[in-house]
Amino acid sequence: MSTTLSGPGATARVRAALAAIAAADRPEIWITLRSSEELLAEAAVVDDAVAAGADLPLAGLLLAVKNNVDVAGIDTTAACPGFAYTPKRDAEAVARLRAAGALVVGATNLDQFATGLVGTRSPHGAVRDARRPDRISGGSSSGSAVAVALGLADLAIGTDTAGSGRVPAGLQGIVGIKATLNLVSTAGVVPACRSWDAVTIFARDLGTAELAMGIMAGGARPWPADVRLAAPERPRVAYPSSLPELPQAWAAEFGRQIARLQAAGVDAEPIEFDVFLQAARLLYDGGLVAERYAAVGAFVNAAGDNSDNPAGLDPTVAGIVRRAGQVPAHSYVADTGRLEGLKRQAMARLEGFDALVVPTAPFHPSLADVAADPVGVNSRMGTYTNFCNLFDLCAVAVPAGEVEGSQFGLTVVGRTFDDAVVAGIARRIATAPPPPALFAAGAAPSRQLPSGEPWPVRAGASSIPLVVVGAHRKGQPLAHQLETLGASWDGHVRTAARYRMVSLDTQPPKPGVYRSEDGAELVAERWLLSRAALGQFLAALPEPMLLGSVRLSDGNSAVGFACDAVAATTGTDITRYGDWLAALAASPAEQAAPGQETPVTGSPGQESRGQESRGSLGDVLLTGFTRGMQPGTGRR
Amino acid sequence: MSTTLSGPGATARVRAALAAIAAADRPEIWITLRSSEELLAEAAVVDDAVAAGADLPLAGLLLAVKNNVDVAGIDTTAACPGFAYTPKRDAEAVARLRAAGALVVGATNLDQFATGLVGTRSPHGAVRDARRPDRISGGSSSGSAVAVALGLADLAIGTDTAGSGRVPAGLQGIVGIKATLNLVSTAGVVPACRSWDAVTIFARDLGTAELAMGIMAGGARPWPADVRLAAPERPRVAYPSSLPELPQAWAAEFGRQIARLQAAGVDAEPIEFDVFLQAARLLYDGGLVAERYAAVGAFVNAAGDNSDNPAGLDPTVAGIVRRAGQVPAHSYVADTGRLEGLKRQAMARLEGFDALVVPTAPFHPSLADVAADPVGVNSRMGTYTNFCNLFDLCAVAVPAGEVEGSQFGLTVVGRTFDDAVVAGIARRIATAPPPPALFAAGAAPSRQLPSGEPWPVRAGASSIPLVVVGAHRKGQPLAHQLETLGASWDGHVRTAARYRMVSLDTQPPKPGVYRSEDGAELVAERWLLSRAALGQFLAALPEPMLLGSVRLSDGNSAVGFACDAVAATTGTDITRYGDWLAALAASPAEQAAPGQETPVTGSPGQESRGQESRGSLGDVLLTGFTRGMQPGTGRR
Repeated sequence: MSTTLSGPGATARVRAALAAIAAADRPEIWITLRSSEELLAEAAVVDDAVAAGADLPLAGLLLAVKNNVDVAGIDTTAACPGFAYTPKRDAEAVARLRAAGALVVGATNLDQFATGLVGTRSPHGAVRDARRPDRISGGSSSGSAVAVALGLADLAIGTDTAGSGRVPAGLQGIVGIKATLNLVSTAGVVPACRSWDAVTIFARDLGTAELAMGIMAGGARPWPADVRLAAPERPRVAYPSSLPELPQAWAAEFGRQIARLQAAGVDAEPIEFDVFLQAARLLYDGGLVAERYAAVGAFVNAAGDNSDNPAGLDPTVAGIVRRAGQVPAHSYVADTGRLEGLKRQAMARLEGFDALVVPTAPFHPSLADVAADPVGVNSRMGTYTNFCNLFDLCAVAVPAGEVEGSQFGLTVVGRTFDDAVVAGIARRIATAPPPPALFAAGAAPSRQLPSGEPWPVRAGASSIPLVVVGAHRKGQPLAHQLETLGASWDGHVRTAARYRMVSLDTQPPKPGVYRSEDGAELVAERWLLSRAALGQFLAALPEPMLLGSVRLSDGNSAVGFACDAVAATTGTDITRYGDWLAALAASPAEQAAPGQETPVTGSPGQESRGQESRGSLGDVLLTGFTRGMQPGTGRR
Repeated sequence: MSTTLSGPGATARVRAALAAIAAADRPEIWITLRSSEELLAEAAVVDDAVAAGADLPLAGLLLAVKNNVDVAGIDTTAACPGFAYTPKRDAEAVARLRAAGALVVGATNLDQFATGLVGTRSPHGAVRDARRPDRISGGSSSGSAVAVALGLADLAIGTDTAGSGRVPAGLQGIVGIKATLNLVSTAGVVPACRSWDAVTIFARDLGTAELAMGIMAGGARPWPADVRLAAPERPRVAYPSSLPELPQAWAAEFGRQIARLQAAGVDAEPIEFDVFLQAARLLYDGGLVAERYAAVGAFVNAAGDNSDNPAGLDPTVAGIVRRAGQVPAHSYVADTGRLEGLKRQAMARLEGFDALVVPTAPFHPSLADVAADPVGVNSRMGTYTNFCNLFDLCAVAVPAGEVEGSQFGLTVVGRTFDDAVVAGIARRIATAPPPPALFAAGAAPSRQLPSGEPWPVRAGASSIPLVVVGAHRKGQPLAHQLETLGASWDGHVRTAARYRMVSLDTQPPKPGVYRSEDGAELVAERWLLSRAALGQFLAALPEPMLLGSVRLSDGNSAVGFACDAVAATTGTDITRYGDWLAALAASPAEQAAPGQETPVTGSPGQESRGQESRGSLGDVLLTGFTRGMQPGTGRR
C-alpha cells in the first residue's frame, strides 16, 4: 500500500540538503543543526534498508523539527536557552516519522514557548520570510515553515495552539495540517496550552503532508466509529461574510478564491463569523491564557528573578506568561463555560456545511510592523486561526496564489474528526503545484498515500471496504448514498470468476449479483466506509439487495452486493457484459420519469429517500434496456 | 412500545400521596410542596389524556424534584433562601418527565448548593434517614431520596457531582441512576461544578428508574455510533481489592454480595483501587473545587458580607465555596492535567472488564457523627463515588440487602456511554423486590421499558434491529458474537410467510434462508445493535451468509439473514420445521469435534474467530443431522 522511493537515495539527498542549508545562509532558522557525519550515517542505514526491501514510505525525506518537540540527543529549548534539557527519546511524533524513513536535519527556531504567531519572539533572532526578508515568517513554528518553504527540508514538525501550524504555512506558501486535537500524541512536546496544543506537519505539497500525517497520527485519541472518510463529490462550504483585518487586495483575492472553488464544483455560502471571533478574544483577553502559566510559569518566574536574563527570556513572552499566573481559577472556569456556549453557536452556524473556508493569515506584516506593536499585530494575525483548537476543529492550510507579492493561503476548517473531509476539500484548492522552492534539497518527488486512502485510515480510523458493481459506482445514481455516509472511493477492482449478474426491474436500474458455479468476473469498484456507515447503509438497503462477503479476482474478500433468490430467478441475465456500465451502454437509452428508488417488489422496505435519480445513465428505463438482451441463462 | 397505566388513576394517586406526606410528618424533606388544588387539577388532565388514549408512560407517577432544579412557578433555592429565584420554565429534565405524565409533588431539601454527601447542610434542617431518624439520609439529594424511600413519591430528580445521586440511594435502599455526563440536559439546574454535574433519577425499583431515565435523557450529548446496548450474558466485573472506610461488617457484606453476583453468572475479579481514590482526593484537596466558586461564589461572597446571614448560608458550605475562590487558575489547569493522567491509569485497570462494582456508601453515620466532624465524615462518604464524574463514567446504585440495621447498596460503574451495560449488570443485583415502603402513595406498580429496550435506546442511542433464525439466537453457539458487540436481545418474532430454509454444512451448523414465492413463516429472534456493531458484524460475516431486508409477520421489515445462491441450491430444505431449533431437535444429536466456525466453501472469508463452539446444540454435526431429513423442495 505504500509508495516506493523514486527520488535519489537518502545519502544523496542529505548531501544536497547540507549544501542547500549552507547556500541559503539563514542561520536564524535553526537552533540546532545535526552534524553531517550523523546525518550521513543515518542516511546510509535508510538506503541499506530500502535496498533490502524495507517498506519505508518516507525513506530519505528530510525532516525539520520545531525545537519544542523532543529529538533524542538534541537540546529541547522552546527557544529559551535557559529552559534547555536533553531528551533521551524522540517525541512520539518524531519517532513515528523516523521509523518510516525520515531523517531529522535539525531543530528549528520558534516564537519562545510557542507563544506568538509572528516568528520574531526568539533570542535566536526573528525568522524572516522565505522570499522577502523584511517580512515576518509567521509563527510560532517559524523555522520549520521557512525550512520547508526554502526547500531545505521536505517535511517539518510544528505545533499549533492558536494558529502556529497554519499562519506560517499561509505566509510561506506551503501546506500545514493541524489534525483534530490529540490525534497526534503530544508526548515529548513542551506544552503551551495543554488543552489546545496540537502537533502539526508542514510540506510543500498536500500529498506529502497527508502521508506524513497518516504516519504521525494514530493511537493517541480513538477515532469515532462513524468517522467520515471523504468529502462528498460536491462539498458545501461556509465562508465568513465579512473579513476583518484583511486589506482590500487580500479580501478581493479571497473572493476570487471562493469563486474559483465554486467553479471547481464546491458550493460556497457566507455565514456570520462573529462567534468565531468571540472565541479568539477569550484566548487573548480572558482567563484561558492561564494554561500558559500552568505550562512554563514556574520556570519563567524563577528565571525572571535574575535581571541579567541569562535564561534568554523574550520580554514579550515572559510578560504574557507572568500575567497568566494572576488569573483566578473561577475566571478560567467561567471562560471555559463561555467557550462551550460559543462552540454550540458556532457549530449551529456550520450546520449543513462540510467545512469552513477562511483566509489563513489576514495580512503579511514587516519585521518593523511587529516591532512597533508586538502584541497588537500578533493578536490580529490569529483572526482566522484562534477559534479552531478552542472549538476542537481540524484544519488544513494550503497555498492559494499570491497577493501584493505575498503568499496567499486558504484554510479549510472542519468538525472534530472530519480530517478526511477537510483534506478532500483542501485538495480542490491545492490543484496547482506549489511555487518552486529557492533551494531544492535533493528534489524529493511528492509522496502520497494510495489514492483512495485518506490519511485518517492510515492513522487507524475504522474503514471497511465495500465492493459495488452497479448503481453505487462513482457517478452512478446511488453513489451519493455512500458519499453522504462519508465513504471514500478506493478505485476499480474485479470480482473472482464466480458470480452471475442479472438486470433488475428497479428504479433506478440496478444489477443483481449472485454466486454461481458457472460465474464470471465482474467489473466493480471499491469504497471505504466507517463501520457505522456500513451498518447504516445496510439498515436502509431495500429488498431484494443483500450484502455479504464477495471474493475478488486478487483472492481477497470484501463486503459486496448480492440479490435475493427471487430477484436472481426473475432478473434477466447480463453476465456476458461483465460490467454493468457496458450492459447499460448496450441498451437503448430512454429517459425514465424522475422518481424514488423503488424495490423490485411492493415491499414496504426501509428506504424511502427522495430525489434518488442523478445522472443520465441512472435514468435509463430498465424495461427498455432489457429489451435488447437475451434471456437469462444462469439459473440451474 | 410503552407500558400502559395499570395502577389507580392519577387523581386517586395524588390523594393518596397527599395523605401519605401528611402522615409521614417529615417536613424537612420538602422546601416547597405544591397545593392539593394544583396537583389535583394536573392529575385530572393526565387522567383525561389517558382516557383519551394518550401514550403517557409515566401517567400519574408522583415526582419529587431536588430544589436546585427548576420547576416552573416554584422558587429554586438550592437550599439557600437568599438565592431564591422563581423560574418561568421547567428544567428540561423536569419538562420531559411531566410531558410523559409525571406529576410534580414538590421541591425537596438538599445539602445547600448541592455541596455535601450527608443531607445535613441545610437551613431547612437535616433530612433524616427514612427508617432510623437518628441517622443521616445521605446527600446532597437528601429530600428526593427519602421521599422515594418512604413511598411519598414514585420518582425523584437528584443531582450528582461527587455522589449526590448515589450515596443517598445507597443509604435509603432505593435505586439511583447517574448517567454518563450531559446525557441529561443540565439546562435549568443550579450548577455545583459545571464540568461534573449530572441530573439523576431515584425510584424504588430499577425498571421504573430506567424508564424515567430513558425519557429524561437524550438530545443533550450525542451517543457514539458504537454504543453498547447490553451487558453480555456473562459479564466480567472488577471490584476493589481493599475497602477503605468500610467497617468490618460492611466489608463482609460486600464480600457476600460479590459472591452472590458470581453465583448469578457474573465473573468478578479484584483490582487495585488506588488511582480511583487519588482522583477523589483531587476533588477535595486540589484545585478542582474552584468550579464551586465559579458556580455560586459571587452570590456567597456578597451574601456573606452581612453577619446576620439573612441569606441562610450554611456555614460549612459557605466556607468551602469561599476557599474555592482563592484557587489560582494554573493550579486548576495542573489538576485537570493530573486528573487526565489518573483517568488513563484507571481505564487501564478496567481493561477487559464490563464494569466496576463498589459499595455505594461506606458506612451510615448518625446526625451526631456528622455534627462532630462535618467535613471529615462528608469526605469519607464519597470514597466510592467521587471518582465517577471526574472520569466521566456512568453508574447505577441499587439496594443490596441490609447490614447492621442499615441499607446496604452496591453501585455498578461503567465507561462513558456504557449506560446500558451497567443497567444490565445492576439488574443482576437488583433481583429481589425493594423493601416495603413505610408509606405507599398510590401504590404505583413498577413501570418499565419493553424488555429488549435499554433506556439509552429510548434516549436516542442508535439501534438497528437484526433478525436471526439460527446460530445467533440466544443461547446458540454464535450468540456471543452479537453480545460482544453490545447487542441487546429484543425477543421473539416471526418472518412473513415468504422464506424457505435449508440446512448448511457449516461448523457450527447454520440454517440458510432465502426468499421464495413458495415460502413459509420462520421462527426468529430480534437483537438491537448499534449501527457500528452492525457494520462490524457484516464485515466479519463469512460466505455464504448474507444480510438484507427481511419482512416480518407483523408487516415490518428489519435487517436479517439470507444465504447465497449456491448455499440455497445445495442445502437440504428444512422449511417444514418452521424453526431452526425444531429442525435441530429432530436430528440425531452427535457431538462434533470442537472447532472454528467454517464457511460452507473453502473461501478464505474474513471470519476466523477461535472457540466458536458453545452449547450442546451447536455441536450437532450437520452431516448426521441432515441424515434424517427429506431432500429439499424449495428450488424452482
